Amino acid sequence: MMSSVQTDQYTKYKTGAEARRAIRSGTWKGPTAGLAPGHVQANLVILPQTYAFDFLRFCLRNPKPCPVLDVTDPGSPHPNPYWAKDADLRTDLPRYWVYERGEVVDELTDITNHWKKDSVAFLIGCSFTFEAAMISAGLPIRHLEYGSNVPVFHTNRPCEPAGIFQGPLVVSMRPIPSRLVALAVKVTSRYPAVHGSPVHIGDPAGLGISDLAKPDYGDAVPIHSNEIPVFWACGVTPQAVAQAIRLPWMIAHSPGHMFITDRLNTELEA
Amino acid sequence: MMSSVQTDQYTKYKTGAEARRAIRSGTWKGPTAGLAPGHVQANLVILPQTYAFDFLRFCLRNPKPCPVLDVTDPGSPHPNPYWAKDADLRTDLPRYWVYERGEVVDELTDITNHWKKDSVAFLIGCSFTFEAAMISAGLPIRHLEYGSNVPVFHTNRPCEPAGIFQGPLVVSMRPIPSRLVALAVKVTSRYPAVHGSPVHIGDPAGLGISDLAKPDYGDAVPIHSNEIPVFWACGVTPQAVAQAIRLPWMIAHSPGHMFITDRLNTELEA
Repeated sequence: MMSSVQTDQYTKYKTGAEARRAIRSGTWKGPTAGLAPGHVQANLVILPQTYAFDFLRFCLRNPKPCPVLDVTDPGSPHPNPYWAKDADLRTDLPRYWVYERGEVVDELTDITNHWKKDSVAFLIGCSFTFEAAMISAGLPIRHLEYGSNVPVFHTNRPCEPAGIFQGPLVVSMRPIPSRLVALAVKVTSRYPAVHGSPVHIGDPAGLGISDLAKPDYGDAVPIHSNEIPVFWACGVTPQAVAQAIRLPWMIAHSPGHMFITDRLNTELEA
Repeated sequence: MMSSVQTDQYTKYKTGAEARRAIRSGTWKGPTAGLAPGHVQANLVILPQTYAFDFLRFCLRNPKPCPVLDVTDPGSPHPNPYWAKDADLRTDLPRYWVYERGEVVDELTDITNHWKKDSVAFLIGCSFTFEAAMISAGLPIRHLEYGSNVPVFHTNRPCEPAGIFQGPLVVSMRPIPSRLVALAVKVTSRYPAVHGSPVHIGDPAGLGISDLAKPDYGDAVPIHSNEIPVFWACGVTPQAVAQAIRLPWMIAHSPGHMFITDRLNTELEA
């Protein structure tokens, strides 16, 4: 849970631009949850242009795990100003992971020297937005209660392939009281640009998940007796796909270290 | 308005597959409005692969006029079976327009001989879906009352460019009684995959439209004294863009002669 000191730190960056400036200058080096409250945060994927069209088609065929917010011009590290004015995707995230042949080979705080003239960056919706809406609606979010990372699982459900891209759907899990599951569906359905409604409710075995106490990423959370597990498509899916196909090269954000945009969460409501 | 004979003709194709079969065999050669009632219909754009990534980015940056439903593998005329099983985009629309340097140079009922090994097809959402929802909600649709085509206007509002693609936003106009405008917004907002909520309500001059009696495409409709004009982004936008940039080659559906999918309109509700 946040201490009051941390809360002060978080709330001193009120806008996306302020938070990006602090990150770019090295003043802020940590995870981005809670920074610039109310602003949309995004997953980052950077690929060579040769894979970009296939990846974009992959995202369109799998809009729940991979809701595309923006794609840069090839070679340009600048997102559409609609999403973030004067931003630079090489410096404005606190921490990046470099993938080679599907494996993480480096963690960096600045990728200026790794950006190539044929690099294309994708901003992909992130569950922070719908979690904000869930909190506003009075829904519990267990991993936030514990100050831990959301539990994330590989499933046996394949994504729809496109070109070279194929791999398993990855899901996040939040335990929801049975009487509130319908509300959780309703609230998250309003945000199709950030994973939208759940892909699966109850019955983990139906997704090939054998033990909810052993997530593939993040931390396990307790499920109370009046609750059932609810599964949402997760933005980690592109990393799982990169691993599955041993993609030659990719840069992504380090988990939890997202890109902060200028837009408000409420603007993504459908 | 439909006669009962026509109604019989329409309703004899109950599914998307039945309607596509009738079109492919040449049994049905007319416009597709009313065929396979309840099923999603789509705009078609076919481009050489060299322009496909730029065009897809253009669509993503302009999701209201160009909501992408599907993109084929380069060279494949078959959409994702999710949208239409065993479909062939070279034969399954009643009528196609071939564009060269942005101008229509040919109208065909079969483009098998024009399909190239680097062709990529895009299916783009169509307002028929949200009109069905409007009708269910009791909203009047003037051009359907008159059995005419929806009036469509070029605007002075530029689309967000991507690569070579740039041009004006094109809008369709439906007069709505003032007391029902909020309902029209609410109902169409639920369908972001088919243009979604209006882009402009009232004040045609604000879009650079000087005379509602002179649409750029389709037919003028009367606006009653208790109504205001409501403007939605229109799937004709890619054709206007092709014209604006004198795109070397493109094939699209002929207006009103859409691709009929297997999905239900209700499945597109957000």
